[in-house]
Amino acid sequence: MDPKGPGRKDKTLEKDTKASRLATRGFFAIMRVIESVREMQKCSETVRLSGKKIGFVPTMGYFHEGHLSLMREARRISDFVVTSIYVNPTQFGPKEDFSKYPRDFERDHRMAEDTGVDVIFYPSNDEMYPPQYQTYVNVESVTQNLCGASRPGHFRGVTTICCKLFNIVKAHAAVFGRKDYQQLAAIKTMVADLNLDLDIIGMPTYREKDGLAMSSRNVYLSAEERKSALSLIASLKHAQRLYEGGEKRAEFIIQEAEKIIRQAPYTDIDYVKICDASSIEDLRLIDTQAVMALAVKVGKTRLIDNHVLGEAFSI
Amino acid sequence: MDPKGPGRKDKTLEKDTKASRLATRGFFAIMRVIESVREMQKCSETVRLSGKKIGFVPTMGYFHEGHLSLMREARRISDFVVTSIYVNPTQFGPKEDFSKYPRDFERDHRMAEDTGVDVIFYPSNDEMYPPQYQTYVNVESVTQNLCGASRPGHFRGVTTICCKLFNIVKAHAAVFGRKDYQQLAAIKTMVADLNLDLDIIGMPTYREKDGLAMSSRNVYLSAEERKSALSLIASLKHAQRLYEGGEKRAEFIIQEAEKIIRQAPYTDIDYVKICDASSIEDLRLIDTQAVMALAVKVGKTRLIDNHVLGEAFSI
Repeated sequence: MDPKGPGRKDKTLEKDTKASRLATRGFFAIMRVIESVREMQKCSETVRLSGKKIGFVPTMGYFHEGHLSLMREARRISDFVVTSIYVNPTQFGPKEDFSKYPRDFERDHRMAEDTGVDVIFYPSNDEMYPPQYQTYVNVESVTQNLCGASRPGHFRGVTTICCKLFNIVKAHAAVFGRKDYQQLAAIKTMVADLNLDLDIIGMPTYREKDGLAMSSRNVYLSAEERKSALSLIASLKHAQRLYEGGEKRAEFIIQEAEKIIRQAPYTDIDYVKICDASSIEDLRLIDTQAVMALAVKVGKTRLIDNHVLGEAFSI
Repeated sequence: MDPKGPGRKDKTLEKDTKASRLATRGFFAIMRVIESVREMQKCSETVRLSGKKIGFVPTMGYFHEGHLSLMREARRISDFVVTSIYVNPTQFGPKEDFSKYPRDFERDHRMAEDTGVDVIFYPSNDEMYPPQYQTYVNVESVTQNLCGASRPGHFRGVTTICCKLFNIVKAHAAVFGRKDYQQLAAIKTMVADLNLDLDIIGMPTYREKDGLAMSSRNVYLSAEERKSALSLIASLKHAQRLYEGGEKRAEFIIQEAEKIIRQAPYTDIDYVKICDASSIEDLRLIDTQAVMALAVKVGKTRLIDNHVLGEAFSI
């Protein structure tokens, strides 16, 4: 056993790590956790008035490398990094996994600090949705298809909470993963339509070495289900091969992709679709930039993934 | 006839007026007109970074003293005053007066300049609602009653355009008239719910000497209709007398108020209601702060007015 006891580290190493963390941190010497809207707004206003740029990564917590890669990008493009941890109830349906969504604030805190985040915004439900709450932001068209069809009200919850968070954090830029492709499209549309003055940056999907898209929900998967979940990336890669071989018929590519997923045990397809990459409308013939998007239940866990046909795969 | 010709003024006087205007103006030596969202945001960001406070008066133009009183309040509480002139199509129903709503930009420009406004934001419809526009802000509960019931979609248009304008003008405070009582309630609710970081200030209704609430739509009224329109303020004053005499039954006060309006020619009541002043829900017994609100067609012109029972009348 380590003589310094579990969890203790070599002092010198700790110092070095901290020094390099502080060198990349923006404003405060230590990472702050802010729970109140008013305090977050005051903090952000001060940072803005000092001429610094705020980069923001909204999350539901339970961090994995995908989240951290977004924080690193925020760090790279801005002077002050805020991440929010909030499992937003209004984007979960009544039968969805809101209450059992994985949470581990201590671990998230440590990971954010090590990644050079300046502030974690960590509000309560009462802070975000006080009694008499009654305002919602609806993005009407790009939210109709895909998860919008499978999860009624989901995107209304997503765009509403993002609108709130953008107003609270007052960021110059917000960084999102492209794994939630339709979510990113809805947020970009909202930001353009409501004239929110911030940049929305979409980063490539972060994947495990074997190609599974990183997701906080992956912890739900049993070892057997974890293997079956690889059928998602396999189907996207097969679709890419067909497309690059000249196939333009969406229906044909979809059928081939579905075959791969159905061959894997424990899978239950919600949708496999090929859409216009901007409008998220179904395509019959792939004659414009197209995204293949899929949602599949593996055991009890609903996983999503997507790929813009013709682009390189990210790992 | 004035030997200097119509419209010409004594030079010395003109200079003095200009000097006093410039003394109260915030940032630029002359009032600017900005038509682009991007330019307005850049201007406002520069003003904010200089540490100055922005006061904002959103309008549909065709200014009267009511508008100017709001601009003066904005001037009083802030360093830099922006007013917007935009007849917002999304808050008009298909059979309403969007196309014939009165407009006179030259006159508005002169009046705003004389009142010490720094910037008029004057966007086109294409600038505000480009093709593919699809995002709307819904305040659900306080918009149900009164004009929300009579004008479906009206408040969705109002809250959406205000959300956009607040994001464009980046104001610290926005000033509204209380004549549009439910509009003010909807905007306050939206600002609180979406965590927009600005103060919403409601100013007393500005009235003509005889009590008619000032409105750009008053120009539609013929001389005869103008007289009948006084039944609105008369009914509010009668309601106030009854309330102050101890009457608590909303229904009784409403009936008495309606009698007064019906006695005036050319009038057609849309609604006369007594509501909770915060939730805008109908009251049967006046046991909390209550607003009497009414909408009446006088000839072809729909007029609204309101009064918080127990408060002093504004003139």
